[in-house]
Amino acid sequence: MKYEAFFERHIESLRQEGRYRVFADLERKAGAFPQALHRHGAQARPVTVWCSNDYLGMGQHPLVIEAMHEALNRCGAGAGGTRNISGTNHTHVLLEREIADLHGKPAALLFNSGYMSNWATLSTLASRMPGCVVLSDASNHASMIEGIRHSRAETQVFAHNDPDDLARRLAALDPHRPKIVAFESVYSMDGDIAPIETFCDLADEHGAMTYLDEVHAVGLYGPRGGGIAEARGLSHRLTVIEGTLAKGFGVVGGYIAGSEALCDFVRSCASGFIFTTSVPPAIAAGALASIRHLKASGVERERHQERVATLRARLDRAGIAHLANESHIVPVMVGDAALCKTISDTLMERFGIYVQPINYPTVPRGTERLRFTPTPMHTDDDIDHLVASLATVWSELGMREAA
Amino acid sequence: MKYEAFFERHIESLRQEGRYRVFADLERKAGAFPQALHRHGAQARPVTVWCSNDYLGMGQHPLVIEAMHEALNRCGAGAGGTRNISGTNHTHVLLEREIADLHGKPAALLFNSGYMSNWATLSTLASRMPGCVVLSDASNHASMIEGIRHSRAETQVFAHNDPDDLARRLAALDPHRPKIVAFESVYSMDGDIAPIETFCDLADEHGAMTYLDEVHAVGLYGPRGGGIAEARGLSHRLTVIEGTLAKGFGVVGGYIAGSEALCDFVRSCASGFIFTTSVPPAIAAGALASIRHLKASGVERERHQERVATLRARLDRAGIAHLANESHIVPVMVGDAALCKTISDTLMERFGIYVQPINYPTVPRGTERLRFTPTPMHTDDDIDHLVASLATVWSELGMREAA
Ligand SMILES: Cc1ncc(COP(=O)(O)O)c(C=O)c1O
Ligand SMILES: Cc1ncc(COP(=O)(O)O)c(C=O)c1O
Repeated sequence: MKYEAFFERHIESLRQEGRYRVFADLERKAGAFPQALHRHGAQARPVTVWCSNDYLGMGQHPLVIEAMHEALNRCGAGAGGTRNISGTNHTHVLLEREIADLHGKPAALLFNSGYMSNWATLSTLASRMPGCVVLSDASNHASMIEGIRHSRAETQVFAHNDPDDLARRLAALDPHRPKIVAFESVYSMDGDIAPIETFCDLADEHGAMTYLDEVHAVGLYGPRGGGIAEARGLSHRLTVIEGTLAKGFGVVGGYIAGSEALCDFVRSCASGFIFTTSVPPAIAAGALASIRHLKASGVERERHQERVATLRARLDRAGIAHLANESHIVPVMVGDAALCKTISDTLMERFGIYVQPINYPTVPRGTERLRFTPTPMHTDDDIDHLVASLATVWSELGMREAA
Repeated sequence: MKYEAFFERHIESLRQEGRYRVFADLERKAGAFPQALHRHGAQARPVTVWCSNDYLGMGQHPLVIEAMHEALNRCGAGAGGTRNISGTNHTHVLLEREIADLHGKPAALLFNSGYMSNWATLSTLASRMPGCVVLSDASNHASMIEGIRHSRAETQVFAHNDPDDLARRLAALDPHRPKIVAFESVYSMDGDIAPIETFCDLADEHGAMTYLDEVHAVGLYGPRGGGIAEARGLSHRLTVIEGTLAKGFGVVGGYIAGSEALCDFVRSCASGFIFTTSVPPAIAAGALASIRHLKASGVERERHQERVATLRARLDRAGIAHLANESHIVPVMVGDAALCKTISDTLMERFGIYVQPINYPTVPRGTERLRFTPTPMHTDDDIDHLVASLATVWSELGMREAA
């Protein structure tokens, strides 16, 4: 086979479809977020970032940065090994305790990313429990899907956020088989939220474990930032809560929280936990500082919700349709990959606004969109400029206004 | 099913087998490596680390730490998004260029870990090329095995480092099917090195791609730290060179280097690349500084090799058998999980020496071992103390001396 030609043909087909991805080359500026520099060839221009998942701007919080400097000086750059072979630093231990406490669980386990925590945990649980069936929400994240797929366990995909479909499927299964109901709290592309309590009720009724991905909620919801489950008083109902340290908490890394035995089991069996260098002590220290801060401080969460409401209200006033949901994610639907890219390019070039076009495979074809994520740091002026720029582009391109 | 009981039973069986893992809780001390603090309950005692994969001590190099401080101040803690959605920082771009140059390849692609680069790349290539067959060395790392397994492509496991077996298998396959020969340069547990040139010759003869994991060699071998392939003048013969930023380079992260089209293909298709937050700018900056330094400086590599030779010579003099190999890895075989742990505990408690027992699943049962990794920072005194301590333990336990 001609390998190069094969790769080139595939890339060419992406270009034809208008979904070849060009990464915006940015320079984040600590203290100035959401402002950043955008590099394009020899040029570097200031832009306002409107699509970051550093939802609360914790990536520039002085306490987080200071904790990282301190750990860097104290412990150096890397962890120096896998968790088992010289790579456990005391900061990892403290961070796992803090995460367990955040979710009201006895134990927690740290991974290099949220992707890895989902992939490794789900593949391990579902492959090791004999006869396991995974009931997986149709809109679950790639990392969950790949983990489930990797386990080769029987999988039943239930209709998105649909308790009736889940109930039907659970009822049809052998009551003695181990089962995992796997779902997310906030779905990152539509911003809708799962009926967590109902799902837990159903799982209890049918003897299933529950696995909840709170990646887009931790730090952001709940009185201490423990996510939607905490906000709804449901943390204790979930067998596993999974989260990231890279979004609301502003650093990098992923985790699960659950019982001692479950975390110890995953720690002892999961290839993706065992066979990889652990996160640098400075990263763990930054995440620890971020969690501790957001446990005690609610101002970031309040301001965040207020900014989201303000953006929504101004979009409404300007007649720019956006998807209604209960969360902080503001999707403006476009429905075409090439058009989505054109709008994004225009916003960047003419208006200094950076919002990445979201296309397949991140969302289904035909639902291409711009996905806005207001943070506590976006000012009224930022919002006004965004809405005015969108209105201009909308009228130039003859796009339909909201009904 | 009683989930908790199931997990507990499994943990209990690990305990019975003597392979329940207790992570040593360490406090790395920048500037003092390989000395560290070991925490145990309320106590914290100094230990010499003899099993780190921070092979050259780059994790405490002032240039690396300084670059991380600088980027932390400039860009903040996290990357703020996936590579495609606001998470590409200019430092990522520079780091990928530097990696490509290190391996003499047109392009490179950065991942969160070496585990992820292997898993995501192999699973993507092998699943996307229709009819692909993977020829995988029998001793390949878990991350490669899981990636290949995830692809569901046909897999042929060839005998470890055995060109004859590889040749036979290649010859028996349809010449038109795409093929990947996947192997490592330095095998991390035995320290032996693959016959890279012969494998490349065979791959060429049969129209196969070559995929080389240089995780335990980058930074350490070759005039610029480009690994065993560079040392042997073979970099251009390999389709993909995979490496880590966490071992020789002392930070964290993984990568592949290869053609523009191949890297672009993986960038565009690999779930494990697309759907995860990118590494923090400060991590990328530290890795960049480390690679640049080791490209220009050979003293770390020279001193490293000298220390390895010195440890081997002194072990020989003391009659402590170790596995012969061409690399920097010094395995002392024990062959029993419980005994291996006893020796390791004794070294830690009585002699302040930390070397983790290596047991299943990291190595096959019956080949449990202590794996020593001397670094340029281990002094003559460190080596003398280690060898004397081992000699004491060996005679107390009545272990066989080397022939
Ligand atoms: C729902 C969900 N889970 C997991 C992840 C992965 O988390 P991380 O970025 O920490 O790898 C993401 C996004 O990146 C996500 O959207
Ligand atoms: C051969 C090999 N490849 C890949 C990896 C994974 O690299 P990383 O630690 O960067 O995830 C390891 C060990 O960790 C390894 O031994």
